[in-house]
Amino acid sequence: MPPTTRRPAPDATRRSEKSRRAIYDAALSLVGEVGYPKTTIEGIAARAGVGKQTIYRWWSSKADVLMEAFLDLAEQANQQAGGRPGDHTLPDTGDLAADLRLVLRATVDELLDPRFEIPSRALAAEGVVDEEMGRAVVARLLEPSLQLYVDRLRAAQDAGQVRPDVDPRIALELFVAPLAQRWLQRTGPISHEYTDTLVDYALYGLAPR
Amino acid sequence: MPPTTRRPAPDATRRSEKSRRAIYDAALSLVGEVGYPKTTIEGIAARAGVGKQTIYRWWSSKADVLMEAFLDLAEQANQQAGGRPGDHTLPDTGDLAADLRLVLRATVDELLDPRFEIPSRALAAEGVVDEEMGRAVVARLLEPSLQLYVDRLRAAQDAGQVRPDVDPRIALELFVAPLAQRWLQRTGPISHEYTDTLVDYALYGLAPR
Repeated sequence: MPPTTRRPAPDATRRSEKSRRAIYDAALSLVGEVGYPKTTIEGIAARAGVGKQTIYRWWSSKADVLMEAFLDLAEQANQQAGGRPGDHTLPDTGDLAADLRLVLRATVDELLDPRFEIPSRALAAEGVVDEEMGRAVVARLLEPSLQLYVDRLRAAQDAGQVRPDVDPRIALELFVAPLAQRWLQRTGPISHEYTDTLVDYALYGLAPR
Repeated sequence: MPPTTRRPAPDATRRSEKSRRAIYDAALSLVGEVGYPKTTIEGIAARAGVGKQTIYRWWSSKADVLMEAFLDLAEQANQQAGGRPGDHTLPDTGDLAADLRLVLRATVDELLDPRFEIPSRALAAEGVVDEEMGRAVVARLLEPSLQLYVDRLRAAQDAGQVRPDVDPRIALELFVAPLAQRWLQRTGPISHEYTDTLVDYALYGLAPR
């Protein structure tokens, strides 16, 4: 093949992109249906209508396929919410409470979307009992999202809106973790009103001022 | 049998108590090893060295055995921590922050105890993907514990230590849920210092006073 044709032709790129999306969709729907332990590369390939080797060419394991499928899903949600491709920052209008309310309301909507909810529960359940898997989910999916809150809270500290002695990595958990627990453990309903309340309590505290 | 002998003889009571404890231990260790779906009444009976019928005489399902095994484990932990049998209230010394720090430190110790951790993870993972099971765990295990915080926060409201407009059922989540999420999803280490910080942030807020 001459060097000039090394870059895939537009048709080949389109075909690859179509396969990639079919593989992500297959991986997410399969894990939601049969759970993580019973999801296999063979099963994903069969459902996506591609050969097993196509998957192994791009990903090293089923965990790897699934992580990237979730990252892709999050990226789609980001773009649907008006975000730019690859832009992973929280809004900063200067009003911390308003910005957090906005982001958490969008998170509620995402958690209630069955396309996200069913595969996410399967992956989360596996992470609870399988430490290696749990740590991979944290490193690749959860912690990068949580770091966006760290950045936003640091900016608020610089602006004097958050106590300077507060550790942003712990502080964010006051509003993120209650929502996560209600969703994951079903300890209560989730709604925009609920997350608005969390933001209020977390920023201004439970003790009287 | 004459009415006076209807009450079991001391030997029979001791035997029943011994069987009951063997069944709880078997249920907890088995679910930790093979997970909830593969745990069976037969397996619990075999490991406990009792007949299947002994289990069915006292419990209606494996879920029922497991729930009571967890309640029993919590009761044992309560008594080891100096609590009276059946006494389920949080300490109230008048100092809300100190009381919450004490209870959350004890919870950290319990979450890090493998006797508790391994079966609890198996049950929690099942609750994430199986809605009926998740709701049973909440109703029988989680919500009764959370209500103890509701009671303690209401007392603090009466004492003027918590804003009167705060909903205690949501407020408790600011310190309980972060600990639960770090433990369950492995998003970070848990320690006494960590839960002390959560109590500080939750009571006094992230915004400057």
